[in-house]
Amino acid sequence: MAEISIKFPDGKVQSFAEGTTPADVAESISISLAKKAVAAKYNGELVDYLTPLKGDGDIEIVTKSDADGLAVLRNTTAALLRIALKKEFPAIRLGEVSADDDGFYVDTDKDDQQVSVDELDALAVIVDKLVKDHLDIKRVALSKADALATVKDDQFSTALINAIDGDQVPFLQIGDYQVLSDGAQLVNTKDVKQFKFLSVAGAYWQGKSSNPMLQRIYGTAFYKEADLKADLARRQEARERDHRVIGNQLDLFFVDPKVGAGLPYWMPNGATIRRTIERYIIDKEVANGYQHVYTPVLANLDLYKQSGHWAHYREDMFPPMDMGDGEQLELRPMNCPSHIQIYNHHIRSYRELPLRIAELGMMHRYEKSGALSGLQRVREMTLNDGHTFVAPDQIQDEFKRILKLMVQVYADFDINDYTFRLSYRDPKNTEKYFADDEMWNKAQTMLKGAMDDLGLDYVEAEGEAAFYGPKLDVQTKTALGNEETLSTIQLDFMLPERFDLHYIGADGEEHRPVMIHRGLVSTMERFTAYLTEIYKGAFPTWLAPKQVTIIPVSEEKHGAYADKLAAEMKAANIRVNVDKRGEKMGYLIRDAQTHKIPYTLVVGEQEMANGSVSVRKYGEDDAQSMSSADFMKEILDDIASYSRDGDSTGEESQVEKKLDQD
Amino acid sequence: MAEISIKFPDGKVQSFAEGTTPADVAESISISLAKKAVAAKYNGELVDYLTPLKGDGDIEIVTKSDADGLAVLRNTTAALLRIALKKEFPAIRLGEVSADDDGFYVDTDKDDQQVSVDELDALAVIVDKLVKDHLDIKRVALSKADALATVKDDQFSTALINAIDGDQVPFLQIGDYQVLSDGAQLVNTKDVKQFKFLSVAGAYWQGKSSNPMLQRIYGTAFYKEADLKADLARRQEARERDHRVIGNQLDLFFVDPKVGAGLPYWMPNGATIRRTIERYIIDKEVANGYQHVYTPVLANLDLYKQSGHWAHYREDMFPPMDMGDGEQLELRPMNCPSHIQIYNHHIRSYRELPLRIAELGMMHRYEKSGALSGLQRVREMTLNDGHTFVAPDQIQDEFKRILKLMVQVYADFDINDYTFRLSYRDPKNTEKYFADDEMWNKAQTMLKGAMDDLGLDYVEAEGEAAFYGPKLDVQTKTALGNEETLSTIQLDFMLPERFDLHYIGADGEEHRPVMIHRGLVSTMERFTAYLTEIYKGAFPTWLAPKQVTIIPVSEEKHGAYADKLAAEMKAANIRVNVDKRGEKMGYLIRDAQTHKIPYTLVVGEQEMANGSVSVRKYGEDDAQSMSSADFMKEILDDIASYSRDGDSTGEESQVEKKLDQD
Repeated sequence: MAEISIKFPDGKVQSFAEGTTPADVAESISISLAKKAVAAKYNGELVDYLTPLKGDGDIEIVTKSDADGLAVLRNTTAALLRIALKKEFPAIRLGEVSADDDGFYVDTDKDDQQVSVDELDALAVIVDKLVKDHLDIKRVALSKADALATVKDDQFSTALINAIDGDQVPFLQIGDYQVLSDGAQLVNTKDVKQFKFLSVAGAYWQGKSSNPMLQRIYGTAFYKEADLKADLARRQEARERDHRVIGNQLDLFFVDPKVGAGLPYWMPNGATIRRTIERYIIDKEVANGYQHVYTPVLANLDLYKQSGHWAHYREDMFPPMDMGDGEQLELRPMNCPSHIQIYNHHIRSYRELPLRIAELGMMHRYEKSGALSGLQRVREMTLNDGHTFVAPDQIQDEFKRILKLMVQVYADFDINDYTFRLSYRDPKNTEKYFADDEMWNKAQTMLKGAMDDLGLDYVEAEGEAAFYGPKLDVQTKTALGNEETLSTIQLDFMLPERFDLHYIGADGEEHRPVMIHRGLVSTMERFTAYLTEIYKGAFPTWLAPKQVTIIPVSEEKHGAYADKLAAEMKAANIRVNVDKRGEKMGYLIRDAQTHKIPYTLVVGEQEMANGSVSVRKYGEDDAQSMSSADFMKEILDDIASYSRDGDSTGEESQVEKKLDQD
Repeated sequence: MAEISIKFPDGKVQSFAEGTTPADVAESISISLAKKAVAAKYNGELVDYLTPLKGDGDIEIVTKSDADGLAVLRNTTAALLRIALKKEFPAIRLGEVSADDDGFYVDTDKDDQQVSVDELDALAVIVDKLVKDHLDIKRVALSKADALATVKDDQFSTALINAIDGDQVPFLQIGDYQVLSDGAQLVNTKDVKQFKFLSVAGAYWQGKSSNPMLQRIYGTAFYKEADLKADLARRQEARERDHRVIGNQLDLFFVDPKVGAGLPYWMPNGATIRRTIERYIIDKEVANGYQHVYTPVLANLDLYKQSGHWAHYREDMFPPMDMGDGEQLELRPMNCPSHIQIYNHHIRSYRELPLRIAELGMMHRYEKSGALSGLQRVREMTLNDGHTFVAPDQIQDEFKRILKLMVQVYADFDINDYTFRLSYRDPKNTEKYFADDEMWNKAQTMLKGAMDDLGLDYVEAEGEAAFYGPKLDVQTKTALGNEETLSTIQLDFMLPERFDLHYIGADGEEHRPVMIHRGLVSTMERFTAYLTEIYKGAFPTWLAPKQVTIIPVSEEKHGAYADKLAAEMKAANIRVNVDKRGEKMGYLIRDAQTHKIPYTLVVGEQEMANGSVSVRKYGEDDAQSMSSADFMKEILDDIASYSRDGDSTGEESQVEKKLDQD
């Protein structure tokens, strides 16, 4: 019998008989390993625990505590869910199945009514029975004709089978059931103990919005009960923090894929928040020497050919529009070429540098519809964008100045949980980038030097740079656990070359400026999503869509007093309304809390008599009585202090302190 | 000899011999008419004075005092300019020629350097000579081959000749010169006495930006010296008022057709004005019960099919973008369907009506490149848009309320020169409009009734309505004399039908709301152009990009005092700079006036000693000394009063008074 050479992760090589399984290999190492093992990676590919291994190879035993071990468990859980679905709803059609480190899903389609969340428990009971029966899971390969016979009247499974190369279709035999297999599987159903079917949601067949909408069942599974519990708690927390959920509760925005995927509509509440952020950031930037402009979202495609976007960034761009007279107009994917137009409109002098151009610039990027998510991933976005044109010897000072401004802005929004990342080009894949090795080395060294100078911590990430230069990114995490870039400072030696930018130096000669691209708070969309999540919808007073609600105890008796107070507040630009719905007091107060209004004022006989108000702050149980004048002072102070007096101490952050010492 | 029947404007019919000329007809009426006559309209077509008339027809004798009489004079002046150009620059190529009631132009192209404005005088001398020679102007018809032989090496004239149907090409014989003819002509050069070549500017061959750029020579001509003088004075006034000229002088904006025709870039000065207008109008609207939103500029094309825009407005829309997954996205030409999405996102109650949705909504309209002009006619624009959803019995009240708000806004901007126009559908062309005769009659009657109620003057214009309903437009005139719509209130019974809009009435049943489309100050582009023209660039303090410039007598001695004052002003949100260029005082003060800065402050020894400033207001010759505290008070009052204290009395306008009485 032939032998094969198997190499272990520690480099040791051992001979085994051909047809040896990962189980044999694990047992040859130790019983304890064999107990934990569920699969293996052989030559990088995840394989079943009982797969006969063929040919020489590198092995890694996959255990229950590995991420891949979870994937195997979830593949099997998804397979059991498929069986349960066919048992419960014999006419159901089954689409794609997927499992990863976040869980698994199975796409379904029923004739009459789609699977509802209420039916998940019944499905779980069926799966539980399969688990308790300790059924062996065996691989069978069906011919395509046999495989198709098992799924007749199911056009989705039929399409999945037809898409498989060759005539062998991988199926699983689990007890009496045959089911299409996806990925590596457990050897017996008994390990699928800790699972949960979580939710159902519409999903287009194969992710295309022109295809039929299927119903996707989401679930998760773990080997240990404690892990499942922790995951469910994390999901609950994420749901409470998810800006899409809060956005719906507080009526901030909505997206309707029929009208346009990734194209959010900002309802009045969300628009108020956005407008407050926009005015804040413009005023802050103007006070810091930025000149704000408005530039068009459309330009001749030639502009993006000259800038290099068309060559390097085309897959993220919208299709050009042919204007019929030879002109092709393009929705801009970035604002930099527009700001270069502003720079180039005049001959610039060294006295004007650093020249800081800023804009809330609308851009369009063609994200795949599957990647879109609420306000976080959209196709139309408005970026808090700025470009500073500097002389080469001003780069470091300007970089630090931008960083200081950024950190001040963070403090105003009470943003504390972020990390710095220096993004370099991928040294193994340099053709994706502007080709100038000297420029890259110089710029990357300069960025790193500035961060070291400031004593700030950072991570370094190769392959994350823009195509025109390296950058500093500020990273945060969304409720769903995705890492997102909140702010960025990018050096660019390329566009000044491509657009032949100049300034007249003190020597009267032409010199080449350097561009620094910077965004303090990313796009209005992403930043609002981020703030919604960190505040869990309880926006600080200055940002809250409604800042005060006044509830008269009796509209008839105290309504006029409430109106008078409201008019005074409106005159001071406070967003206030008088709640005259006349419902029970307890209900109205709870409703104000549900809508996370910072101040709820109750006014009745006593308040009217002595010109006071009874104030309940959001999240506090007790009301406090104070004169209306004192309340005005309190709320105006609150608004003027931004978020610095919120959860945090209102003191300078560590990073602010380091930057101040510089 | 055959006879023809000629009918006069008064209805009389008379017989003449075939071949009779307009000259014969004019002389048959009176010698005085014949003296003034220069051409005729025969069956609606403008013909030469000595053209033999063929067939029966209606005649109108065209005299020197008719608009058509000016067109004939300008056709001939353009023909003489063509001759002069060929004499002065034998190798010149000649493009299109046009004459209308504003003047005439001839397109030219030279090999080396294009014709410059400095060469216009020399050309005028040549034309003068042709005029003084009293040359007869005779028509000759050349065969196409002969015609082409006269313009060899001139691809533009060649193209014009080739575009003529048939083999007869109309030429003029003027003395020894042969020149391609355009339109009706004078009989002798002697009448071309009062002419002026005005300017030269680039123009694309046949108006297409993909074609070569030619040099267009503009000119005008009149029969009387006084008329020419008046026209030149008017042009001078228009030039001083033209927002494109001022926009360039004050660095407000620019348009670069190479990057995108009709796509303006707002420089920092223009952007400051625009931002101030935007914040003003949003705050004003929010205070008046509007809920501001942000909605996407893109939507699925289906939305505009449902709204009717694709059927009725397609020629003004941009081409749809194919997103590759069956989705077609369209840049919106109007915001109404977007606001309908906002309305329809919730079930609405009668308690919410009137529901007022507003937005500074960016839109795109495909204007022909020839129609584009500065900020006035653009392809990308941001409209001060609003849609009020009302119950049918709220229409008149809401209409009046909008009108009141509009007139308050006008007063804040010191806008006094406007007229009201009720725009109805064209009763002879009803298929262009939403088909519901009852709706049109009801809505038109309702608008007229409201205006009559308020006692406001208006004109009525048939055929000017939107396709979905009648409207009230507020009309103003641009520096170039074009009538433009500044504000609009439009009734719409159609879109609520098309989108099946509802509200739940007090009776618990579903009812259909009516939409009122309204724009108070049109687009940011057009409104800024308009304000630039009415203020002639001297923006009132609240709008001025730079409000104060402080000039220290000596930077060394008084610079610190100037900086301290500037810091105080900046803290009060005043836009101030300290002029430290160190040029002569007189130059710096003149420069501040040239840039139309409202306040120029000079600070020297005396001012520093007693904490005062020397204040020179824009347009005033004398400076005034006051304490810096008094100056702060004065400028802050000035800013807070908007433009009401400007040229006007600051009092309520007549229209405001009428509306207040309602």
